[in-house]
Amino acid sequence: MLKYEKVANQIELFIKENDLNQGDKLPILDDLTEEFKVSKSTIIKALDILEIKGLIYQVRGSGIFVRKSHRSGYINLSGGDGFRKDLEGFELDSKVISLEQMVPPKKVALGLKLEDNEEVYYLKRLRIIEGAPLCLEESYFSKKHVIYLNNEIVQGSVFDYLRDDLKIEFGFTDIYLRIVDLSKKEAELMGLKEGDAALLSESMYHLHNGEPFNYSILKYHKDQAQFFVPTSRY
Amino acid sequence: MLKYEKVANQIELFIKENDLNQGDKLPILDDLTEEFKVSKSTIIKALDILEIKGLIYQVRGSGIFVRKSHRSGYINLSGGDGFRKDLEGFELDSKVISLEQMVPPKKVALGLKLEDNEEVYYLKRLRIIEGAPLCLEESYFSKKHVIYLNNEIVQGSVFDYLRDDLKIEFGFTDIYLRIVDLSKKEAELMGLKEGDAALLSESMYHLHNGEPFNYSILKYHKDQAQFFVPTSRY
Repeated sequence: MLKYEKVANQIELFIKENDLNQGDKLPILDDLTEEFKVSKSTIIKALDILEIKGLIYQVRGSGIFVRKSHRSGYINLSGGDGFRKDLEGFELDSKVISLEQMVPPKKVALGLKLEDNEEVYYLKRLRIIEGAPLCLEESYFSKKHVIYLNNEIVQGSVFDYLRDDLKIEFGFTDIYLRIVDLSKKEAELMGLKEGDAALLSESMYHLHNGEPFNYSILKYHKDQAQFFVPTSRY
Repeated sequence: MLKYEKVANQIELFIKENDLNQGDKLPILDDLTEEFKVSKSTIIKALDILEIKGLIYQVRGSGIFVRKSHRSGYINLSGGDGFRKDLEGFELDSKVISLEQMVPPKKVALGLKLEDNEEVYYLKRLRIIEGAPLCLEESYFSKKHVIYLNNEIVQGSVFDYLRDDLKIEFGFTDIYLRIVDLSKKEAELMGLKEGDAALLSESMYHLHNGEPFNYSILKYHKDQAQFFVPTSRY
């Protein structure tokens, strides 16, 4: 982790621990510089990150202010690394439907920039929140980057495993959202009716160097599909 | 507009004019500094903005690369200032259902931080794309900031008017998304059936100084609700 990322995390912790609310003013730049014993440019970079993440806003000539944390139970799409953190305090579970190694459909292979006949791990599982269906997930992981998966791993957070065990550095993500109708089979798994609406979220995850490594299709239960997107002033 | 914002726009234009694709490399920092005749720190700030906007990604020790522009017809939620720009090339229209001055519901007044009995402009309109219903909009504009609206203005882009005529400086936006069922009246306006699903987008827009000025509720036609969220590596 880079120095400014560490400082950003510390300021985030400071906001939480002091239970600061929207509009509350943070210490001025000079005081933050002194407090965290880093250079001014490190603090500025850390503040920019917090602004992008939707945790603060900066008003020229006036100060640095806290942005209110969003409603509970809403998934922050700007996070780009799964929803575990947003759903802290909720009981999450997974029912693995299938995990296999395969040559993926052409569209997926193209998106993941695979060679001919290059294999992926294909994972299908039902994500469960507080005992109720949250979403149906289909994920394709390029084996070049995700060298190993098993049933025990995909029972929990795959992203924690990728980050902590495989030391994968996440980069940017493209997320597409739209409404689709559920098929009969999908509806059964979700406890819904055929043709019921679901929120489809299609994501292409890239490594820090720009290479795509995971393509995921999530179909959210209509009662559970709650998303938050904080935009910054840019 | 600040210098680094101007440079960011120029680099964006450079990418468009040279028709660069995902993974294409941009000139190195020193060359950009020379090309745009600004300081290194201005270029760095401009590149950070472009990264946040999902237009480039930076790989330490390797270079600056173009991120592919997203699928046509998808609305980029990270823009935070209406969807006109994303839907360029599509014919957009509005059918104004009502425009009035009123004391808003309590929840709205609280969100907009209004005093007791402070009024808003309330706007209800159907947004139309290529002749078909795109979404049903209900917007509350605090009169303190949006001092004047009329039927002619709300026929077009209210945000263009706020920016260009009222010189309002936009800040950050909180966007919440979920699926709702349409009422009979709403469904009729959209050419759908009662109980059909719609994608509800609830947005609180803030000025550059953090004051909320507009609360909007959009219900998107299920066939037209297509959103894009680019996340960056932060």
